[in-house]
Amino acid sequence: MSKNTTVSNSVIRRLPRYYRFLGDLLSQNVAKMSSRELSEKMGLTASQIRQDLNCFGGFGQQGYGYNLAELYKEIGNLLGIDNQVKTILIGAGNLGRAIASHIDFNKRGCNLIAIFDSDESLKGTEVAGMSVHHISKLHEFCKENEPVIAILCIPKTGAQAVADDLVSMGIKAFWNYSHYDLQVNYKDIIVENVHLGDSLLTLTYRVNNQ
Amino acid sequence: MSKNTTVSNSVIRRLPRYYRFLGDLLSQNVAKMSSRELSEKMGLTASQIRQDLNCFGGFGQQGYGYNLAELYKEIGNLLGIDNQVKTILIGAGNLGRAIASHIDFNKRGCNLIAIFDSDESLKGTEVAGMSVHHISKLHEFCKENEPVIAILCIPKTGAQAVADDLVSMGIKAFWNYSHYDLQVNYKDIIVENVHLGDSLLTLTYRVNNQ
Repeated sequence: MSKNTTVSNSVIRRLPRYYRFLGDLLSQNVAKMSSRELSEKMGLTASQIRQDLNCFGGFGQQGYGYNLAELYKEIGNLLGIDNQVKTILIGAGNLGRAIASHIDFNKRGCNLIAIFDSDESLKGTEVAGMSVHHISKLHEFCKENEPVIAILCIPKTGAQAVADDLVSMGIKAFWNYSHYDLQVNYKDIIVENVHLGDSLLTLTYRVNNQ
Repeated sequence: MSKNTTVSNSVIRRLPRYYRFLGDLLSQNVAKMSSRELSEKMGLTASQIRQDLNCFGGFGQQGYGYNLAELYKEIGNLLGIDNQVKTILIGAGNLGRAIASHIDFNKRGCNLIAIFDSDESLKGTEVAGMSVHHISKLHEFCKENEPVIAILCIPKTGAQAVADDLVSMGIKAFWNYSHYDLQVNYKDIIVENVHLGDSLLTLTYRVNNQ
């Protein structure tokens, strides 16, 4: 499928989930699956799945089910998994260290190449097999290595200033864990805010109101 | 406002964000704000904000703006912040430790009362001011303390079995960080899945396709 094929936003939002489910099925040596079976696993309707997967060329054959390996590869291409976008992480506190260690970046199309922190005492400590750099090295590093994505695991205060700096150093996208809706006043800069606290509050609401 | 007031699902989804913004504004000693100003801060339209906030009794006065403290309190009541739901965390690895340390549970209506891990070597280590229990103590602990929410920071393999066990011990809700869509086959059990990997993949897609 050409990259220019139009895929709706709602389908795009579901892509990571399809990719995760298909990866799991392939790792269990499942090669084919019908839309009905997939729908039971994923909690979507079979017709929704057929409609979504048709967007990617429709690797299903009536009565035979979908070729999961082909579908996985095609969705991976669409996501750009093989591009391995250069990524840096700012903030090597509890959360930063956990994100660096917990996320399989390569499987998410990213290559985590460096970790920075403003705390002198963390300089040189090892996180996820990398040595933490002092934040003062950021500018030089970005100039030499041209990272594209920055992960912000820093407190709310200062997050905006660091983000503005990073944009000036060529960063194009932020994965933002600060308790703060990052606003970048430059067009074409991409922001994905992760609000863990909001997620817990949603659960709290449901517990208290169900 | 009575708890039985009907609030639509889409408004409920926005509640944690309103609560966070209002908390921030109050901590900056902002007492009143118009829907127009709020809309600029939150990236919603002013009419959307008026419509949403009217659901909570509408603490706005034409020309004077909203009374933020009243609004914050009302949304907090609706979320059930004061209930301080008893919460336990399963898994004291990198991610579990980060979640325990990073999230301000009390401000999200939860009281984190214990942390468990199956790794004997973690038993007794301190995380977020608490001593990690061995998982073998879970049943006894739940019987005595009746926790309501369980946070799962454990690997995918085993997550389903642990969740089933926890339901049998009286757990009513899961905040699930396992790379896995938890399916609990008991009605009234609430699950909030957090898929950090899916969030990063969404960013990757946007970087590669913008």
